[in-house]
Amino acid sequence: MNEPVKIKEAARMLRGMQDLLILTHKNPDGDTLGSGFALWAALRALGIRARVHNEGEFPAKYGFMTGPYFERAEEFEPRHIISVDTAAVKLMGEKTAAAYARRVELAIDHHGTNEQYALSLTVCDPGSASCCELIARLIDALGVRMDTYMANCIYTGLATDTGCFKYSNTTADSHLLAARLIGLGVDFAQLNRIFFETKSRGRIRLEQMALAGIEYAAGGKIAMITITQEMLKRAGCDHSDIEGVTPIPRTIEGVELGVTLRELENGNYKVSLRSFELDSAKLCALFGGGGHKRAAGFECSGTPHDIKAAVVAAAEAEMAK
Amino acid sequence: MNEPVKIKEAARMLRGMQDLLILTHKNPDGDTLGSGFALWAALRALGIRARVHNEGEFPAKYGFMTGPYFERAEEFEPRHIISVDTAAVKLMGEKTAAAYARRVELAIDHHGTNEQYALSLTVCDPGSASCCELIARLIDALGVRMDTYMANCIYTGLATDTGCFKYSNTTADSHLLAARLIGLGVDFAQLNRIFFETKSRGRIRLEQMALAGIEYAAGGKIAMITITQEMLKRAGCDHSDIEGVTPIPRTIEGVELGVTLRELENGNYKVSLRSFELDSAKLCALFGGGGHKRAAGFECSGTPHDIKAAVVAAAEAEMAK
Repeated sequence: MNEPVKIKEAARMLRGMQDLLILTHKNPDGDTLGSGFALWAALRALGIRARVHNEGEFPAKYGFMTGPYFERAEEFEPRHIISVDTAAVKLMGEKTAAAYARRVELAIDHHGTNEQYALSLTVCDPGSASCCELIARLIDALGVRMDTYMANCIYTGLATDTGCFKYSNTTADSHLLAARLIGLGVDFAQLNRIFFETKSRGRIRLEQMALAGIEYAAGGKIAMITITQEMLKRAGCDHSDIEGVTPIPRTIEGVELGVTLRELENGNYKVSLRSFELDSAKLCALFGGGGHKRAAGFECSGTPHDIKAAVVAAAEAEMAK
Repeated sequence: MNEPVKIKEAARMLRGMQDLLILTHKNPDGDTLGSGFALWAALRALGIRARVHNEGEFPAKYGFMTGPYFERAEEFEPRHIISVDTAAVKLMGEKTAAAYARRVELAIDHHGTNEQYALSLTVCDPGSASCCELIARLIDALGVRMDTYMANCIYTGLATDTGCFKYSNTTADSHLLAARLIGLGVDFAQLNRIFFETKSRGRIRLEQMALAGIEYAAGGKIAMITITQEMLKRAGCDHSDIEGVTPIPRTIEGVELGVTLRELENGNYKVSLRSFELDSAKLCALFGGGGHKRAAGFECSGTPHDIKAAVVAAAEAEMAK
């Protein structure tokens, strides 16, 4: 894509709009919300009314974004619809998609899988680690001076989508933007504490229970944990807590394949594989599942004992190749 | 300090030296080793022989630094001694201090507490998050082109001392340097996996055992764990594993004071306090200990039950103020 040109085009479009609805993806993360609220604040600085929309609730940990927003939010009938960090219509959520998907004029995104559903313009740069990096450039193109609120929003997307600059998607540009945001007074230490160093009590309980039952196989190259419905009940966990526990087996020294079995409400098991060099997607395909090379999954019935034995046998065969 | 001038002066000194011993601090971390090996490589590029010295062993996880070093290391009788990231003579280790402390000509450091033990020049910038940031500037001042090996070493110190750019010591300059290092081909995703996403099996066992016994007080504002000698034996842990577990109680949502009791070999307890707003140093002073506002400790005798009760009583009194 010819990106700088498209950013300028997006800025020109936005300047001509009024009463915007900014769609964020369901199960919202730091990047979609950071993008949405930073853009809301920038438009507001230009006298353009906008609202940030999500199919569900805004999670409490993003209160530093939503607090100032709700103080100033205005009711109006949206005349223009745009989306941020949302690769596909189905990611908007059912109600949102039904109401607005066909009216999205501008989509700003960084997923290579963007479905190009926007009517007028899709600004999509898969080379950007976060959508917020594109929003920062859009704010510049709009001629808006970035304030600390916008900087905090942008930093949020940048930090959360890169695992705080840890992951391979981080670029030199990500760091250059972070340097600029620090210059703008972003409260990064406090934000990072919220995003990366805070676990719920339920999450702590679930971790403890899952680790108590950890099993190793293939001479320590495979580590497996099981999360049952009963454990979830006892721990008092929500979905995001489970997401935090799933990567743990792979973080253990010497482990090449981390396996997490999660009992579903219907009694089946959701099996999540995490690897480095081993192809998790290929392994999961053997069980009717799929995903990415380093993170894949499948669903199946059976006892944890049998499921683990089958995964270990398949993984050992693959490792022996 | 007049830092750019001092960096230039250090470069001038080093260019006139030959057969250098570079001292790193005991219990070496990523910053002291990254500083030492990056400087070794830069001096080598100038035809200056040097060795990196540590009182103990180089930990295996820094093999990407030590591997190429041991391949090329030469034996020689050191003629000049310098130190990196070492604030005090006692941090060199006993044997090292006895042999070399009085001969250190140049110290490069970033601790505000540097004891100014160097004979000729101390380059100390407490505003730098890592000593490696000073080494990067020194390499530039030496006129050496930074290669990927040096970049990996520098990144190591930068990332490990800032918690991968999470902590408040991170500066805009830290990010600008990271951007430059990525441009030099630093293998940051792999390095960060080693530093931040790998736990030993012993550490996993210790976490599980410690979390199984977690206790809350003050309506969830205090979380406490206990690590006994028996747990350490069962888990098969080393010192760095314990260090990784100590911060856990404070990471729990709603917790303002994290308390870790560790049974010592003599039967006493080392009590570590971690807080945000509450003054841990002040609390520890009540028990004859001390430290920083957010991280302090003390040693005492007694049963875990009584020690916890005393800490909770003191903390609740302080919270009520």
